[in-house]
Amino acid sequence: MSDASTALSAEQLQERLLRAPYHQWLGLKVEEVGKGTVTIRATWREEWVVNPDRRYTHGGILAALVDLTADWALGAQLGRGIPTIDMRVDYHRVALPGDLVCKGKIVKQGGQFSVAEAEIFDLDGKLCASGRGVYLTAAPK
Amino acid sequence: MSDASTALSAEQLQERLLRAPYHQWLGLKVEEVGKGTVTIRATWREEWVVNPDRRYTHGGILAALVDLTADWALGAQLGRGIPTIDMRVDYHRVALPGDLVCKGKIVKQGGQFSVAEAEIFDLDGKLCASGRGVYLTAAPK
Amino acid sequence: MSDASTALSAEQLQERLLRAPYHQWLGLKVEEVGKGTVTIRATWREEWVVNPDRRYTHGGILAALVDLTADWALGAQLGRGIPTIDMRVDYHRVALPGDLVCKGKIVKQGGQFSVAEAEIFDLDGKLCASGRGVYLTAAPK
Amino acid sequence: MSDASTALSAEQLQERLLRAPYHQWLGLKVEEVGKGTVTIRATWREEWVVNPDRRYTHGGILAALVDLTADWALGAQLGRGIPTIDMRVDYHRVALPGDLVCKGKIVKQGGQFSVAEAEIFDLDGKLCASGRGVYLTAAPK
Repeated sequence: MSDASTALSAEQLQERLLRAPYHQWLGLKVEEVGKGTVTIRATWREEWVVNPDRRYTHGGILAALVDLTADWALGAQLGRGIPTIDMRVDYHRVALPGDLVCKGKIVKQGGQFSVAEAEIFDLDGKLCASGRGVYLTAAPK
Repeated sequence: MSDASTALSAEQLQERLLRAPYHQWLGLKVEEVGKGTVTIRATWREEWVVNPDRRYTHGGILAALVDLTADWALGAQLGRGIPTIDMRVDYHRVALPGDLVCKGKIVKQGGQFSVAEAEIFDLDGKLCASGRGVYLTAAPK
Repeated sequence: MSDASTALSAEQLQERLLRAPYHQWLGLKVEEVGKGTVTIRATWREEWVVNPDRRYTHGGILAALVDLTADWALGAQLGRGIPTIDMRVDYHRVALPGDLVCKGKIVKQGGQFSVAEAEIFDLDGKLCASGRGVYLTAAPK
Repeated sequence: MSDASTALSAEQLQERLLRAPYHQWLGLKVEEVGKGTVTIRATWREEWVVNPDRRYTHGGILAALVDLTADWALGAQLGRGIPTIDMRVDYHRVALPGDLVCKGKIVKQGGQFSVAEAEIFDLDGKLCASGRGVYLTAAPK
């Protein structure tokens, strides 16, 4: 493919994302791709639950959503998958059963590595988690 | 229950962990509980894959394992589930298909919040990811 | 003082900040206090340099500025000093000799702990570092 | 210089460290260089204080010590200064007036980037802060 340095459209990003079995399992749906931004919806499933009584979502699901959403804010820009170097998540409130809306944004795009961040909202628009990662954007060899 | 402040045995931790549907899905098996430490094995499954060609495991799975392993190093000590405040992961090498061995350790146990860390190894003993979290150990009200 | 739970004005924040010898050494000047936001200027000094040839500022200075700026976005709101639980910084570009402008913002204010973030700009408005911290906002006993 | 890939001795590291004005200000003294490890002492000074009543050390000082100690665990190994990509610190207890002993260790050395960690102890051997950073170990161009 010759578009390796161009942005992906929402449809192209959707197709790329769903190559990953874990992304299929998370029920990812690309809602929007902008300049350095993405919005991705994840489809709630019973297996996300950590606490069977209060039924909220496992922090590891929220962490995965922060990682992949920030990552693909960069990936949509660069047109390719990008390795995560490290990632950090802050948990703000429990996410009860329901889909999650994930907004990603590039903080600083660099030649060797880049920083992007993501926010995870429930369907009431409440911020459940946010965080950022550092990604290896050096051209693959 | 009257053991709320005592350590869980490996069997008790296993039982607690598997109350969570996401932990069941991750195929968690408690291998050891020590003083401020835990070893937990996670059972590989096809849905973990992020890259269908190279077939390595999604960073979000590794992040979940870091979070829950560090968390339960504290939880096994305190005998209860403990909310994560924030969590950070460094990715060291790709994890290819195969179970993962997760070692957690308390860094600093405090009255209001505590720090614990975890390392994720593949079955060859190679370190794939490591990280730590801050956990809310204030007594529940 | 009876305003312990109310926001500080810029003048009051300036006075509070300069009680700390390290803040005096950093030459902090409060430029603005808004609703959940602060802007603080730090005055460059020769001792900040890490690389005597290229003369850029030590990452530990930038880290301190991220920490204190995010912290006082909360502190100005709550009217008191607030302990840092943990802090993370991403370095985006070297900061050459010159004052730094530090913008802080509350991400999520909570009863027990809160998250705030900060960006550090040089005088050309370029983003040199950014990060966030988790702060202990439980009422002091 | 032809020793770009060899370890520095404690004396060489001391000399390198003190090229930086901020390291001079921190009163850094290299106590030991091992295989992937360093111990560095920092000399307390009045300007470190954040709280003039309780007189404990500013978190930004501890953050700087975590950053530089982890960094030079790598730097002593590689024989050169290494840029920090990002850094994270957990605060465990306040550091009262007195020198600080900083122990750094490489977690994972890589070709493009590496992870190292550090612990900051007071003179009673109590852990005041710990953390880690990601460092750009790609060969300089």
